[in-house]
Amino acid sequence: MPRAFNFSAGPSAIPEEVLREAAAEMLDYKGSGMSVMEMSHRSQAYQAIIDDAEATLRRIMAIPDNYRVLFMQGGATLQFAAVPMNLMRGRHAGYLVSGNWSKKAWLEACKYGQADVLASSEDTSFDRVPTLASPVDQGLDYVYLCQNETVYGTMYHDLPDTGGVPLVADLSSMFLSCPVDVSRYGLIFAGVQKNAGPAGNTIVIVRDDLLGDVPALGDVVPTYMGYRLQASKGSMYNTPNTWGIYLCGKVFHWIEESGGLVAMRERNWKKVNRLYDYLDQSALFSPLAQGPSRSIANVTFRAPSPELDAAFVAGAAERNIVGIKGHRVLGGLRASCYNAVPAKAIDALLAYMADFESTRADAADAADNPSNANANATSPSALPRSS
Amino acid sequence: MPRAFNFSAGPSAIPEEVLREAAAEMLDYKGSGMSVMEMSHRSQAYQAIIDDAEATLRRIMAIPDNYRVLFMQGGATLQFAAVPMNLMRGRHAGYLVSGNWSKKAWLEACKYGQADVLASSEDTSFDRVPTLASPVDQGLDYVYLCQNETVYGTMYHDLPDTGGVPLVADLSSMFLSCPVDVSRYGLIFAGVQKNAGPAGNTIVIVRDDLLGDVPALGDVVPTYMGYRLQASKGSMYNTPNTWGIYLCGKVFHWIEESGGLVAMRERNWKKVNRLYDYLDQSALFSPLAQGPSRSIANVTFRAPSPELDAAFVAGAAERNIVGIKGHRVLGGLRASCYNAVPAKAIDALLAYMADFESTRADAADAADNPSNANANATSPSALPRSS
Repeated sequence: MPRAFNFSAGPSAIPEEVLREAAAEMLDYKGSGMSVMEMSHRSQAYQAIIDDAEATLRRIMAIPDNYRVLFMQGGATLQFAAVPMNLMRGRHAGYLVSGNWSKKAWLEACKYGQADVLASSEDTSFDRVPTLASPVDQGLDYVYLCQNETVYGTMYHDLPDTGGVPLVADLSSMFLSCPVDVSRYGLIFAGVQKNAGPAGNTIVIVRDDLLGDVPALGDVVPTYMGYRLQASKGSMYNTPNTWGIYLCGKVFHWIEESGGLVAMRERNWKKVNRLYDYLDQSALFSPLAQGPSRSIANVTFRAPSPELDAAFVAGAAERNIVGIKGHRVLGGLRASCYNAVPAKAIDALLAYMADFESTRADAADAADNPSNANANATSPSALPRSS
Repeated sequence: MPRAFNFSAGPSAIPEEVLREAAAEMLDYKGSGMSVMEMSHRSQAYQAIIDDAEATLRRIMAIPDNYRVLFMQGGATLQFAAVPMNLMRGRHAGYLVSGNWSKKAWLEACKYGQADVLASSEDTSFDRVPTLASPVDQGLDYVYLCQNETVYGTMYHDLPDTGGVPLVADLSSMFLSCPVDVSRYGLIFAGVQKNAGPAGNTIVIVRDDLLGDVPALGDVVPTYMGYRLQASKGSMYNTPNTWGIYLCGKVFHWIEESGGLVAMRERNWKKVNRLYDYLDQSALFSPLAQGPSRSIANVTFRAPSPELDAAFVAGAAERNIVGIKGHRVLGGLRASCYNAVPAKAIDALLAYMADFESTRADAADAADNPSNANANATSPSALPRSS
């Protein structure tokens, strides 16, 4: 079977070179006589693996020395609790609600203190990112956002000005898609299963001064979830997901050897802009995200009816195109174009879209489709284009 | 490099057949054109993988229908908090403290309510498992124990009588080493990185009636940690460690095809009894666990001095024997003989021990070693022997 054109939102495509290396090392990692999965996390051999993974990530992201890097388990969902449990010292934070994930994070934070919604785009069905209308209360413990909304396909291209309040960002679906200035954030976290490796690790990058001696919620925080403790133990207070970290390290090297995050950004905008360009002129498909908020990774769109969406998904499978069904809370279609999705996958998807559209011309003409493509189109200059 | 003789306490040896299959499927799982790591957890293909893993585990453990099986992340350490957070409805539980792990679990529970130590063997340096001296208060939410102590090499061969109070057991290092009667427990959990797969999944097996509509500690429990929610979502409230579950499924099949847990028990007792027999007659090495408490998995022992322990570890590496250094809290030596450790690894270790001892006869004679081998020996009939 040829490799699939995999547009899954996560878990998602992993560079083929990484998979080949992992397969080759499966029974004997570098002369150790064992798989990395069989190796004690306390062994020198494994310590070298996790150290190298962290060091490579620090290089490709240019992470300043005053930030700690943690490899944790439990996904972004566990971080939705870990963030307030660790950081909400004044029991008061602000949330920007741009979609499914930031809304979940906000609801979780409400368990632990006062979590104000500073801005929301729910009234426009999360088709754009909401922005701050007024200066941030400088007494907040942090301001939270999800910088790239995987479900709705939106993205913050510019960070809000929070004054001196630390910015906490869920970067999951744009993590390593492009450079970010780490020093602008107090804390970044990201599930790795988009651009960084297999599901089962969440990377937390947190500024030293935000870690008190104990978590904000003190003794009721599960020990596992204490950032300070995990940092002091090099992410090995207990056994980490050793295989996942090993794979992440390989992906980090692949990124570095492929030109780093600047190259990733160029490639990714080039890929998604081809799709956005097609959608903006299509008579059948409608893009779902407003132009200035469009994502570098997740291209959301729909056909004029759920039936046509389903037909599109079914037909895609016959062309070895997978993972293009939209998230269940939104429906429609979605093509996630992470780092490991090659340009030829975009070729295949565009060719299929054009073929599908040409055979459904009647459907497009008949569709009552007020939110059609042109309504959401922006001029090319308004879109980030390879930059 | 030949495969190492891997006695690591966890992560630990995985059956070679499982590793070969995983390597062969790395770039194309059963014609899907992708690795399992790249597959959406919401895909039919992945659903089949997790369903098969659970079904196979249910068969090999004979798990009754009124128990739920969860695949969670965060290790046993996160369960130390999840157990009281979910189950401590009366804010009162009892703990049996038999070593490092149950002590940590007890300390964690103390954050969330009253956790009484019902029995402890700390006064004898955890060289045996403590037993209940009096009937259990029937008002307790649960009684907790760690059935096999990985650090100290002890094991409960019989479960305490808790009356009607649910028994919660950390089975990590004996999970799938031998049959257990699941119906005797209210909840079992186990980090899988001993006998069941790569680090990064913890399996929770919990009786339906212990799951209320909400966790015991209500709304302050991180959503991820709610057993009821995870059960209702088939362990996929959020993205699980998909690769780890896939590997666990393969290991479950390997166990089933190797004769199931009865065969594992026979093989494991045969392996460890060969080591215990050697230790009981050795003039150099001393076993650390009292005979009636000895583990089916973790054989702990030491030479007369830390220097000799270190020399033994160093020499072992030259014979491709790895993972025999004792846990840092206890020191000494430890051979963990999980399912995937073959009999020939025991041959190699015994041969090395004998050679080492013969060249250190002087050390043995000179050692001031009151806790020598014979002091801990029990008659063969007192030990579980292949049963």
